[in-house]
Amino acid sequence: MPRPKTFDLNQALLNAMRLFWRKGYAATSIEDLVEALNLSRSSIYGAFTDKRNLFLAALQLYSDAVIAGIQKTLNETEAPLEGIQKVFDNLVAEVGTDKGALGCFMVNSVAELVPYDADVTTIAQTYSEAIEGMLVEVLKRGAAQGNLTTERTPEALAAYLFNTIQGMRVLIKAGATRDQLEAIRDITLHSLQ
Amino acid sequence: MPRPKTFDLNQALLNAMRLFWRKGYAATSIEDLVEALNLSRSSIYGAFTDKRNLFLAALQLYSDAVIAGIQKTLNETEAPLEGIQKVFDNLVAEVGTDKGALGCFMVNSVAELVPYDADVTTIAQTYSEAIEGMLVEVLKRGAAQGNLTTERTPEALAAYLFNTIQGMRVLIKAGATRDQLEAIRDITLHSLQ
Repeated sequence: MPRPKTFDLNQALLNAMRLFWRKGYAATSIEDLVEALNLSRSSIYGAFTDKRNLFLAALQLYSDAVIAGIQKTLNETEAPLEGIQKVFDNLVAEVGTDKGALGCFMVNSVAELVPYDADVTTIAQTYSEAIEGMLVEVLKRGAAQGNLTTERTPEALAAYLFNTIQGMRVLIKAGATRDQLEAIRDITLHSLQ
Repeated sequence: MPRPKTFDLNQALLNAMRLFWRKGYAATSIEDLVEALNLSRSSIYGAFTDKRNLFLAALQLYSDAVIAGIQKTLNETEAPLEGIQKVFDNLVAEVGTDKGALGCFMVNSVAELVPYDADVTTIAQTYSEAIEGMLVEVLKRGAAQGNLTTERTPEALAAYLFNTIQGMRVLIKAGATRDQLEAIRDITLHSLQ
């Protein structure tokens, strides 16, 4: 029988996610991972094969968490468009915080590795489709209640909202002000009506 | 007297910019630079001190070129808002191209190095302010001609437009479709009115 693993794989993956998120893929060395995960090199290789596989698992973990978080936010309100407002409020709240300075691990990974790494490209495309898909559902509910512009399809509006979100992750990381982010949020939400 | 440099510094910097743009800072080795610049290690160090200084000079070159390009595009048309439309048309035209896949060297650098590198942060903030400043000027001309919403300040609209641009650079790199980018452009331009 194989010896049971004596460390928490989920916690190790979470620590790896935090490190890759801050440093990026190329700048993160195996030595950095040994320190951040508090595991030996051989334990890391034994559990995750290599740095690239560990990175892909960390990015997938991030993707799942963000998608679940947005879904939860969108479900929290009765009025569909209020859910979208809340997603944007949460983004604006990141201005000037450590989390805001980290940016979005997915945007950072797209910037560094897409389209050169096919697996990262697939994870990023699946992420985009999932978020836009959730937005389409909410927008359709808003349209059914008559609270949405009829000039654009829900799919077009969802692409537009997703674009605003990705832009905001870049602007917040780069040090844009709260006033700027609030203006971007307000103009974006106004254009849904 | 020092021997005259026997290579073209501007061409070397341009080659370095192209390499850093594609690979990012951390993933670019001195060996990569020796090959891409067709220069010896000592020539590179002699001219640019170290990898980080060469990167900063390359990013500044990119910044200057993009700012000049947008200024030129905005100046090409009589009607102010047509100039903004042209800036967005140029972005949409990058869907599916090699340039689109590279993304924006500034967005990529923000994702990788801001706010951890103070000099990159300064270059990125100066870049944002320059582009938003040019947009403010154009928007003010549009407002004077009565072609602009009066519900928002030119500064708020400029932040919003800049956010859309940065988002589009991420979405194009990540493989969004032409239909999606056209929808984002159209909804954004419509919200100026």
